[in-house]
Amino acid sequence: VRPTAAIIVIGDEILAGKFADENAGYAIGELRALGVALRRIEVIPDDLDDIAASVRAASSRYTHVLTSGGIGPTHDDLTMEGIARAFDVPVERHPELERLLARYYGPRLDPNHLRMASAPRGAELLVSDHPEWPVCAFRNVYILPGIPLIFRRKLDAIKERFRAPPFHLARVYALAEEAWLAPRLEAVLAAVPGVTIGSYPRLEAPDYRVMITLEAEDPSRLDAAVRELEGRLAPGVHVRTER
Amino acid sequence: VRPTAAIIVIGDEILAGKFADENAGYAIGELRALGVALRRIEVIPDDLDDIAASVRAASSRYTHVLTSGGIGPTHDDLTMEGIARAFDVPVERHPELERLLARYYGPRLDPNHLRMASAPRGAELLVSDHPEWPVCAFRNVYILPGIPLIFRRKLDAIKERFRAPPFHLARVYALAEEAWLAPRLEAVLAAVPGVTIGSYPRLEAPDYRVMITLEAEDPSRLDAAVRELEGRLAPGVHVRTER
Repeated sequence: VRPTAAIIVIGDEILAGKFADENAGYAIGELRALGVALRRIEVIPDDLDDIAASVRAASSRYTHVLTSGGIGPTHDDLTMEGIARAFDVPVERHPELERLLARYYGPRLDPNHLRMASAPRGAELLVSDHPEWPVCAFRNVYILPGIPLIFRRKLDAIKERFRAPPFHLARVYALAEEAWLAPRLEAVLAAVPGVTIGSYPRLEAPDYRVMITLEAEDPSRLDAAVRELEGRLAPGVHVRTER
Repeated sequence: VRPTAAIIVIGDEILAGKFADENAGYAIGELRALGVALRRIEVIPDDLDDIAASVRAASSRYTHVLTSGGIGPTHDDLTMEGIARAFDVPVERHPELERLLARYYGPRLDPNHLRMASAPRGAELLVSDHPEWPVCAFRNVYILPGIPLIFRRKLDAIKERFRAPPFHLARVYALAEEAWLAPRLEAVLAAVPGVTIGSYPRLEAPDYRVMITLEAEDPSRLDAAVRELEGRLAPGVHVRTER
C-alpha cells in the first residue's frame, strides 16, 4: 500500500501575503519523487486550536505529516504546544534538544534560546542521516522549520525514511476540447481498471489544448491505458505522449 | 468586524506536482489588498467527501470561501457535486448557465459541454460587474475555475463585493537574533493592547536578520506600538521601519 502524506504550513505571514510559501512547493516535488502520495496541504494561522485540530486529523488519516513553521523562540511560535495539544501530552524541556542548543550557542546561550528546547512529551529527535540537521518528530508528525533554507536541509536529511516504489505516469497531449475528450477518457477508464486519469486544459500552451495524465500502480496497466487512449484520439488530436 | 476567508484548491494535479498552484498565491494578494483576513488555505484531492467536508467546515467558519478547480466537463471535475453534498442539496441543471454555454458554443454545443451547466440547487450566478465572466456562488462559497488565467479574471470580476477597511501594517527590520528580540516583542505586546506582532528571521537577507511585522485595526495603536518597539531596540539593531 502506497504511503500518504499531508503538509501543514503554520504561519500568519503566509496567509497575510508577507512571504510566499516555498516549503509546501518544495515538499510536493520531494514527496512525489519519493513515491509518497501527498493528499492534503493546509496553510493555517499561528493559533493553538487550529494547529492542534489540523495535526490531530492529519496524523490519524495519513502515513506521514510534515509541519512547517512556528518553532522559533518568539511568542508567535506555537507549533510544539499545538502538537502537544493535538495528542493531549504536555510540552517539556527535551534534554537532547537542550544539549544541542547549548553546543550550538556556547557561552551566548540564554533562556530565550532554550525556548527552542521544548517539545511534546515523547517526541524523538531524528539525527540518523545528517547529524547536523536534527529533526524533532512526534509519532508520524515531522516538525520542520519555516525558514525555507533550513526546511529544505532538514527534509533532505530525513527523506529517505519515506521512500516507496516510484509512481508510473504518462502524459498525453491533445489538441481537442475537454468536452470532446470527456467520453473518450471515460471509455479508457472503463476498459482498463486500476488506472487514474486527469485532464488539464491549458489556454496558453503552444501546441496542445489539454494535458491528459494517466497513472497506475502496475506499469503494464499504464501501457494498456495509454494504447487504449491513443487509439481513441482522432488523427491530428494526439500531439505526443511522454513517459 | 473584519471579514475572513478561506481558499480551497481542489486538484490532484497540484498535490502530485504536475502543476504548481498559482491561484491561491494570487488570491492571497488580492484578499489582503481588499482588507479580508485570509485564515486558511487547503489543497485537497478530486474527491467528493474531501470537497464536501472542507467546504462545509469553511463555509460555517469564515465570511467568504473561494474554491479553485474541478468545474470542467470531465470525470475528475467533482466540485459542484462536492459542494452540493456539503449542503445536502441536489445538483441540477442551472438554466442561466445552460443559456450562457449555448450562447458561447453556438452550433457546436453538445451534451458534454452541458455538464458544465450543473450546479447545486440554489446556486446563484454573479454577473454584476463583468458580465463576460460570470461566477457561480452557493451561499458564501464562490466557485472559481482551476485554469489560472480564468481564475484571475473571474476573481477580479467579483472582488469588489469583498472590500473591507484596509489593514494597517508596519515592518521593522532588525539586526539581532530572535531570542534577543523575543522578550522585547512581548514587552511591546503588553504595553500596547490590540496589536499583533510577527517575527520572521531570514538568513539570506542583505542588511537585517529579522523582519518584525506589527498590525492593528486602529492606526494610532500601530503608531504607539512602533514607537514602543523602536525605543526598545539597541542602537545598531534597528535597521529601518517601513509603513
